[in-house]
Amino acid sequence: MQKITSNQNSRVKEWTKMQSKKGRVKSGQYVIEGWHIVDEAIKHHKQLQALMVTDETYLENLPVDSATEVYVITPEIAKHIAATETPQGVFAVLATEDYHETIPDDLDGSWLLLDSIQDPGNIGTMVRTADAAGMNGVVFGKGSADIYNPKVVRSMQGSQFHMRLFAGDLIDWMTAFKKNGVPTYGTELNDQAISYYDVQPTKKFGLVMGNEGNGVDPEILSWTSQNLYIPMNGEAESLNVAVATGILIFHFCK
Amino acid sequence: MQKITSNQNSRVKEWTKMQSKKGRVKSGQYVIEGWHIVDEAIKHHKQLQALMVTDETYLENLPVDSATEVYVITPEIAKHIAATETPQGVFAVLATEDYHETIPDDLDGSWLLLDSIQDPGNIGTMVRTADAAGMNGVVFGKGSADIYNPKVVRSMQGSQFHMRLFAGDLIDWMTAFKKNGVPTYGTELNDQAISYYDVQPTKKFGLVMGNEGNGVDPEILSWTSQNLYIPMNGEAESLNVAVATGILIFHFCK
Repeated sequence: MQKITSNQNSRVKEWTKMQSKKGRVKSGQYVIEGWHIVDEAIKHHKQLQALMVTDETYLENLPVDSATEVYVITPEIAKHIAATETPQGVFAVLATEDYHETIPDDLDGSWLLLDSIQDPGNIGTMVRTADAAGMNGVVFGKGSADIYNPKVVRSMQGSQFHMRLFAGDLIDWMTAFKKNGVPTYGTELNDQAISYYDVQPTKKFGLVMGNEGNGVDPEILSWTSQNLYIPMNGEAESLNVAVATGILIFHFCK
Repeated sequence: MQKITSNQNSRVKEWTKMQSKKGRVKSGQYVIEGWHIVDEAIKHHKQLQALMVTDETYLENLPVDSATEVYVITPEIAKHIAATETPQGVFAVLATEDYHETIPDDLDGSWLLLDSIQDPGNIGTMVRTADAAGMNGVVFGKGSADIYNPKVVRSMQGSQFHMRLFAGDLIDWMTAFKKNGVPTYGTELNDQAISYYDVQPTKKFGLVMGNEGNGVDPEILSWTSQNLYIPMNGEAESLNVAVATGILIFHFCK
């Protein structure tokens, strides 16, 4: 166990660099923070390449032996390396497992596809929702934030340990779904779209959710089996994309 | 039309103070920002007590005549008074209408009650979801952020112009619902709770959603007609509270 008290320490500099995708790709590592996520990582037998706490007594509740390196850091360093404004004082470094860029042969089950979702908090919440519903995987399309973006990681709350997360070209995925006879749904508001009530709950589907402002890319929509809308009686023009995702997924996965 | 170039200007200081509840209560005013929300305010004939833009040409698209005061401000001032990091350059000052602290006599329809919801983004998203579903009103219980909190206002996206927002003691509301024969639902995971599937869609109900970490206060739960849970097949332990709200509301309001 080592103590670090300076932001200028080389380890601190490395951890800080992991806040950017470039830094994560270069090191092959990312930082998780907070008790819940660190606990989830341990429960899923992830190798903690480093474990950092702001208070030595925290180590009493953590499997120190299983961490490659253990550091006690100052609250100032914690603030420096954290993605949150008031970090809980427990962090770990994990390997960024591969980005699962290859589409699996077996596409049975249910899949959520993210088309250019901008807000990392929305992305993380959508992954967590797919996880709660027991979906098989989430595909991060081009233009969506990186899987290991600190804000995505924070709002996923450990879902990356429960389900497969892919990065890929959504048109390739749509092609694969079509070939495998998996029905796919997009969301849009036009004459061809039907209410989601009219789709029966199902265990095998792909659902594409689109950008907060612009919706799903028309080229991707042209690949779907059916496009859907959520009937709204009120005055708000749209739903938050993570809320809309929850409504649709929990209808399908009933 | 006046130009303001200094953060030290007395108007700028007033607008900045409206970021805190104390400042809003004192002035009886709050700031809205962004094209969409300002447009909504205009569409709903709200009196703009001030209209502020960072570019004089923006005024061509705005009903300058209907604003009491019009200011062109610098991008620096915009950053200073904004709740967002990259403000769109259009702001307005509105009166904080009363907080509707009196429970209405007619409790027909559907109501969302917020029990100590912490995150202003969640609150705003929940209000927007209730608005989209055509609910009658939202009640902000004690411990939930203020209705006119800038982050709540931002994520409501104008819902405060479409539906009634109340501040009040949730036990008083539960008592009133009971007296009026309106069924109420809380969310909790225990032996008495039933799956939400088992509740038929309905047009008359109160739904209480609770704190992100602790759920609904047990005292409030003891007042509900029935407590519900959302069946989850996956591994995530919980849903984001705004997503859970969307799933329940859109089931009830079908």
